[in-house]
Amino acid sequence: MKISTNITIFGGTGDLTFRKLVPALYIMRRTGKLAPDARVVIIGRRDYTDDAYRTLARDWVRRFSRLPYTEADWDAFSQSIHYYRMNFSDPTAYSGLADCYAQHEIGAHMFYFAVAPAFFGTITEGLKTLPGLSGSKVVIEKPFGETLEAARVLNEELEGFFGAENIYRIDHYLGKEMIRNVQTIRFANPIFANAWNSQSIESVEISALEDVGVETRGGYYDAAGALKDMVQNHLFQILSILAMERPDNFTSAELHREQLRVLRALRPVDASTLEDTLVLGQYAGYREEPLVSPKSTTETFAAMRLFIDNDRWRGTPFYIRTGKKTGTRQTEVAITFRRSTPETDPDVLIVKVQPTEGVYLRFNIKRPGDTEDIVPAKMDFCQNCILENHINTPEAYERLLTACLNGERAWFSQWDQIELSWNFIEHLRALVAQTALPVHPYEAGNRGPDAARALPEKFGHAWVEEDD
Amino acid sequence: MKISTNITIFGGTGDLTFRKLVPALYIMRRTGKLAPDARVVIIGRRDYTDDAYRTLARDWVRRFSRLPYTEADWDAFSQSIHYYRMNFSDPTAYSGLADCYAQHEIGAHMFYFAVAPAFFGTITEGLKTLPGLSGSKVVIEKPFGETLEAARVLNEELEGFFGAENIYRIDHYLGKEMIRNVQTIRFANPIFANAWNSQSIESVEISALEDVGVETRGGYYDAAGALKDMVQNHLFQILSILAMERPDNFTSAELHREQLRVLRALRPVDASTLEDTLVLGQYAGYREEPLVSPKSTTETFAAMRLFIDNDRWRGTPFYIRTGKKTGTRQTEVAITFRRSTPETDPDVLIVKVQPTEGVYLRFNIKRPGDTEDIVPAKMDFCQNCILENHINTPEAYERLLTACLNGERAWFSQWDQIELSWNFIEHLRALVAQTALPVHPYEAGNRGPDAARALPEKFGHAWVEEDD
Repeated sequence: MKISTNITIFGGTGDLTFRKLVPALYIMRRTGKLAPDARVVIIGRRDYTDDAYRTLARDWVRRFSRLPYTEADWDAFSQSIHYYRMNFSDPTAYSGLADCYAQHEIGAHMFYFAVAPAFFGTITEGLKTLPGLSGSKVVIEKPFGETLEAARVLNEELEGFFGAENIYRIDHYLGKEMIRNVQTIRFANPIFANAWNSQSIESVEISALEDVGVETRGGYYDAAGALKDMVQNHLFQILSILAMERPDNFTSAELHREQLRVLRALRPVDASTLEDTLVLGQYAGYREEPLVSPKSTTETFAAMRLFIDNDRWRGTPFYIRTGKKTGTRQTEVAITFRRSTPETDPDVLIVKVQPTEGVYLRFNIKRPGDTEDIVPAKMDFCQNCILENHINTPEAYERLLTACLNGERAWFSQWDQIELSWNFIEHLRALVAQTALPVHPYEAGNRGPDAARALPEKFGHAWVEEDD
Repeated sequence: MKISTNITIFGGTGDLTFRKLVPALYIMRRTGKLAPDARVVIIGRRDYTDDAYRTLARDWVRRFSRLPYTEADWDAFSQSIHYYRMNFSDPTAYSGLADCYAQHEIGAHMFYFAVAPAFFGTITEGLKTLPGLSGSKVVIEKPFGETLEAARVLNEELEGFFGAENIYRIDHYLGKEMIRNVQTIRFANPIFANAWNSQSIESVEISALEDVGVETRGGYYDAAGALKDMVQNHLFQILSILAMERPDNFTSAELHREQLRVLRALRPVDASTLEDTLVLGQYAGYREEPLVSPKSTTETFAAMRLFIDNDRWRGTPFYIRTGKKTGTRQTEVAITFRRSTPETDPDVLIVKVQPTEGVYLRFNIKRPGDTEDIVPAKMDFCQNCILENHINTPEAYERLLTACLNGERAWFSQWDQIELSWNFIEHLRALVAQTALPVHPYEAGNRGPDAARALPEKFGHAWVEEDD
């Protein structure tokens, strides 16, 4: 039997595999994005037969599939799943995996490291002992290391064996429908494209608010904090997509280059500008969460005011905020245009990323009736909120796994972007320590501490609050 | 008893008075726009007592009031209505009217000539014989005369007695909510204001389509045709509002001056450019309509392609179309922006005037799902179509009568605008005769003849067709 693509998932009994990867592969098979002769090898330490694992996985697919589950589709797909028990920390265990692969002719390998970064090196060492795997695709998840230095070493090892062009670093925000749509909305609409600069735009906001707290992830989160967990990767990716120059063509190389130029142009922050750049917060009760230090000063909320020092953006602040327990779940981008007069509300273009996917424009009209008063109104396009228009867009992982299979690199993080972002955030962290910047407490259900609200207000701006 | 304003309606038993004027005054009284001590004197030839006329008028108000009729409001208002029987063509009849006025102290007079223009002069002559009416306000309706020359003579007579600043020429399109909104949408939104020129705009369309035929108005219509009935007044008014330069301030004098400059800049048409400027049509069955000549060549549909030769608009065609029996009722303005690439659909801003009042923007997004295809979507603001948002905006006559009472002249037609428009259309008519431009037949229910569709297509454009 010939296997076109062999997908090996390390960490096959973990949450990510059950909630995201297996349901995504199930849909990909249904929708023709995963070939019928592809095989999924699940690697874990527990003892399962193929059938036992399939039965377990089926329950997760039933729960998390974005399309209605059908028995027939599951039966067809589940035959491709094989469970292979091994301790991937044991270098001697890999010879058995070699035997497993050798039973069939395999067109291409793709590895998914759904494990902690501490194991990336170990697994890579193990795979090196097998024949013919150099040059395979490998997918990894952030965090890419405990420290920037550790991540750098790890990256070199991965790139050395698999090749830089075969490392797919998942940033699942890049798989979201409306983040991928930002480019189109911006570049394919001259009324926006022509106004996409500091002459026309007063401020830009990127907001990623969560309703939940740290839940079971207190251990990881307390060491990371909002800056590293959200800003450094997801929000800086969105920032660079929003702000980049139009690439000559939309290849991944050109897109990555333009994104990188944005990060390079971020205005450096020093101790004297830190207070006008960063506000940190921690929700009340965070220190009582499981696995969180009772004296933790980790931020669960961060608000930022950044500048991009290039011709397009000089003078336009980029406001970023993210946090947990904010009383809402909402990721969106807001472009606030300059006002026509000081008395008039600004036009605001909002791209809603989640949970609603859509676009709306706040603009000005005459108040209806016998008056010439000017009042704001809202033109709305909602992709997934109106029943009749309901479009069930692919899940981020489905989209990103498909992109990886097809060798589309545009929507994965490049190492140089990661390194720049990481350096920027590490520098901020050092300034926070040096200046003893406070971490303001906030009540759960608030959109961060009062100081976060005050940050844009000090400069005549405000966070764009959803009115529906 | 003191009467703050005495409104005299000549033609008090006609359709306009019953359908529009009395219901408008009833609402104005309810909403405080007509003072409780104002009086409405209805003049007609038929014999009614006040009570008989009020009873008759009540039925029309019940039917045409935009707010639910209430007995209490009607009782309060109807006491202000007085019927005065006279033959206004008889110069000796006016002394009786003088007696009627002399019974009370009257603060101000407003006259509404809801009669054919042939009677404007007669009535003015009659009113001249009464004391103290010079300088009163007078409201007139188009047509302002049978010919431009006759209209000019009439205008001089009216202006001579009442004063130019007291003539209120009704163009009821200027009373429509969304026509008045065009200014705000355009000037109070920099993303539109900055793009409002030929560099950004590919074409502009003004479309006023009617579902009905000439109905009972065949006699008038057959002598007028679509050009004179619709284009010369309503559509040229809209054109000049859309295209004008931003006035230094929004006074009626400044607005009128800027509108006039647009009409002056209309590119002249000659026999060699007529075919690319004008397409005429006549609906099948028109010649069988009551009071229409069986050999009529009157157009019931007109499509035009015009240019405004100034720096802002050079190179952007203005497409205008209007017609009867088009299978739809729809007045709207569409601004088509230039495309980002030849393959991409253009952004289109549409202002819906009637029956729906709203604004929408056709723009481009990424097709949802695993694709980078660009597809058009629609951001929608509907002022009167969503139940929860439903705003019952004032009727045009209510708005215009109120404006007249308040001396707000901006939303009335100025004589110099009328004269310019009339000359332009008369010149076109002469060219039509000279070149024997065909009047294409079209089936009722079609949006004009095929030649009307072909007019923009010849230049790579198309009429914007509503998709909802």
